[in-house]
Amino acid sequence: MTDHDFLRRAIDYAVENVRTARGGPFGAVIVRDGVILAAGSNVVTASLDPTAHAEIMAIRAACLRAKSFNLSGCTMYSSCEPCPMCLGAIYWARIDRLVYASTRDDAAAAGFDDSLIYEQIPLAPGSRSLRTENFLREEGARAFTAWRESLGKVPY
Amino acid sequence: MTDHDFLRRAIDYAVENVRTARGGPFGAVIVRDGVILAAGSNVVTASLDPTAHAEIMAIRAACLRAKSFNLSGCTMYSSCEPCPMCLGAIYWARIDRLVYASTRDDAAAAGFDDSLIYEQIPLAPGSRSLRTENFLREEGARAFTAWRESLGKVPY
Repeated sequence: MTDHDFLRRAIDYAVENVRTARGGPFGAVIVRDGVILAAGSNVVTASLDPTAHAEIMAIRAACLRAKSFNLSGCTMYSSCEPCPMCLGAIYWARIDRLVYASTRDDAAAAGFDDSLIYEQIPLAPGSRSLRTENFLREEGARAFTAWRESLGKVPY
Repeated sequence: MTDHDFLRRAIDYAVENVRTARGGPFGAVIVRDGVILAAGSNVVTASLDPTAHAEIMAIRAACLRAKSFNLSGCTMYSSCEPCPMCLGAIYWARIDRLVYASTRDDAAAAGFDDSLIYEQIPLAPGSRSLRTENFLREEGARAFTAWRESLGKVPY
């Protein structure tokens, strides 16, 4: 299968997801060594989970399949340009390559506008539309001290 | 309970999470009308899920509890400043307010550096360290056409 085949598969999942009324028009597949490791579609409404975007669902499934939280060596094919949340997840999962079909402008024209979030993330915390406060910084250090002293930790 | 009490509770979850070796030193609680709706801690390694950050786990649990994918009216208390993935999730969940203790600099000093991701997200897709390609834009439109024509869709 070629890049185009895998990307068409992601688009097929998006279309199928709408036809079965499971969620929004988004699908994704994750490929390693020319084989589909896992697929995902948007199930925000069906699962009452605002984080259940297609890319996140595909990452979770691929990690379970690969028995690893590290997907280096993988390509993510998404029917649409990922939102900032999903882009962050792609980086955390160490995915090497991203291929997408529709753009964020196409998504916005269809009523799925993540441009606000793209604008907000680079801002200083106090300048965002999300009201944000920072307290107890010294007490927060308790968690990092526990981590530094932990013998049983699994670094990641 | 005050803001400080709720934030200390999030820090307690972070410390407890390290002590029980479930995952990284991060905890979060979500509060509505002065009551804790749900809590979460980082279980990336235990659940083999790179998206299982404390804030994401708390959002998933709070949405199940509230039977809604919309957490407007809620405050997120996090032991540490959220990464871009979690910040995106906070916006998608429509959370109104964010309070955190440790900063992203404190996290980086403890070995949890999300500054790369903060730098990458605002870049144009072709300028990121994540190799990114955009193909088949016209075919991607099939998914949005299906959505527009769908009678059974649940808008979100």
